Amino acid sequence: MKLTILGCHSATPKVTAHPTAQVLEIKGHLFLIDCGEGTQVQLRRNKVKFSRIRHVFISHLHGDHFFGLVGLISTFRLLGREAELHIYGPKGIKEAITLQLKLGNSWTNYPLIFHELDSNSPEVIFEDDKLTVETIPLKHRVYTNGFLFREKPGERKLILKAAQKAKVDKSLFNKVKQGYDVENELGDIIPNELLTEDPEPPKSYAYCSDTAYLPRVVNQIKGSDVLYHESTFLDHHHLLAEKTMHSTAKEAAAIAKKAEVGTLILGHYSGRYGDLSAFKSEAGQIFENVVLAEDGKSFEF
Amino acid sequence: MKLTILGCHSATPKVTAHPTAQVLEIKGHLFLIDCGEGTQVQLRRNKVKFSRIRHVFISHLHGDHFFGLVGLISTFRLLGREAELHIYGPKGIKEAITLQLKLGNSWTNYPLIFHELDSNSPEVIFEDDKLTVETIPLKHRVYTNGFLFREKPGERKLILKAAQKAKVDKSLFNKVKQGYDVENELGDIIPNELLTEDPEPPKSYAYCSDTAYLPRVVNQIKGSDVLYHESTFLDHHHLLAEKTMHSTAKEAAAIAKKAEVGTLILGHYSGRYGDLSAFKSEAGQIFENVVLAEDGKSFEF
Repeated sequence: MKLTILGCHSATPKVTAHPTAQVLEIKGHLFLIDCGEGTQVQLRRNKVKFSRIRHVFISHLHGDHFFGLVGLISTFRLLGREAELHIYGPKGIKEAITLQLKLGNSWTNYPLIFHELDSNSPEVIFEDDKLTVETIPLKHRVYTNGFLFREKPGERKLILKAAQKAKVDKSLFNKVKQGYDVENELGDIIPNELLTEDPEPPKSYAYCSDTAYLPRVVNQIKGSDVLYHESTFLDHHHLLAEKTMHSTAKEAAAIAKKAEVGTLILGHYSGRYGDLSAFKSEAGQIFENVVLAEDGKSFEF
Repeated sequence: MKLTILGCHSATPKVTAHPTAQVLEIKGHLFLIDCGEGTQVQLRRNKVKFSRIRHVFISHLHGDHFFGLVGLISTFRLLGREAELHIYGPKGIKEAITLQLKLGNSWTNYPLIFHELDSNSPEVIFEDDKLTVETIPLKHRVYTNGFLFREKPGERKLILKAAQKAKVDKSLFNKVKQGYDVENELGDIIPNELLTEDPEPPKSYAYCSDTAYLPRVVNQIKGSDVLYHESTFLDHHHLLAEKTMHSTAKEAAAIAKKAEVGTLILGHYSGRYGDLSAFKSEAGQIFENVVLAEDGKSFEF
């Protein structure tokens, strides 16, 4: 699982501060999460292959999270894309995008499939044999979802030498990996635990941006390996955070602690702060394993 | 009159190639012409004061000319703008912008005034005591206008020493500048030509992008000091230019020559060309005074 931060700043884009966008590589997918203005250039700058993006998840319809989407969709068309593109985002996103394509007489020549969201309860919006993606309903000035990316438990790991020694025929290996006991060439039943090891534990990534402090997400994201939680403000601006329905670094850390996540990544910084290290130290007083998002930074976990 | 090129590349934005946007400083105004994705960052990079922009002219609704507009409008709001912003562009632009603001629950707190265009004949869309702006109907895949910015003739220049010598009272200087003969302190009529010089000739700037080769614009832009004309392609791609309703450098130069403009600025280059100097040499064979637009380059004239 690899997360690349394309932008982690709030509100207005600047020369060196990009609005929210990130790509998550997980189980062969490359998911784009949010798409502020300039995301397509950030994808180029970070050498992300456009064609690998097949699913885009938009948290909410504030500009710093979605004004880059229509340009990205248009660029895919100009580059001759043929593969489907799935867009998951709040109700209304389809109209906003299609109206602009219509005005430019620039319909895509690849299938553009919208999955509009309006539920206030968590729901699974993508699933294949290796992972699920579910919404995390958040609390912000407009309808907003975070997203929880959860790997499914993998197959058990075959211990090849043990299987050979136990004279288990190759044709049964898939069954073994699925956890079954099998009969060997001599007709003996070989218990699965002699032939396999536990798989890598499935990983999970929770993305929570933008949101006011919202303890009810804790249950849903409990034990996630990594949590990206917005921290637009520092604690001394907590009244401003309340008013604008954003979180402070302290509140993000409180969520991380209660949810017992592995690592907390902070981001969505307000432009008012010059030095961002205060975000880390403020959160660090509550939750130990904190890292700061930076535009262009990748995390492997 | 000062023109700053914020972006002069066609189609998809890249790390070092920005889509179309430029600012024209003329008679105290700062006009923004087109607004591709990333224009607000280009404005910052080129240190253009946001508050000075009160009029935005959008040629057509292809993404590389207008996807940056909604973000710019939103940023103005976040920065606390109070002054009116006037947007001139094709019919439909108002709906595209307002729908996105509505979805984000992000109405501007300053007056946002749309002037939607749908005429196929030139029309004056802005006028004050110092200049006019008129549309130049162009020929492209969607409804498109260029813009002609024309200074009005200024007042005649007072020759102070001559006026004093002729004993003309100060209170008459304004009348003199307006071209009138006046009576001096001795009761003599002083002819205006003794008191004034011709003013600076009024300047004009013609912006033509995007368009197929369109000789009918020649009459309208005749004698302009500066013509910015798109040249998406070189002549060996002229069939592609025809098909996509763009121009070649050779065609842009032919327009410049027929219109007897002072300077031709080329831009809107296709991304397929590495070295742009061929644009200059191709156009230079037909029209002498050619310069190449570059992102971040300013021209004073």
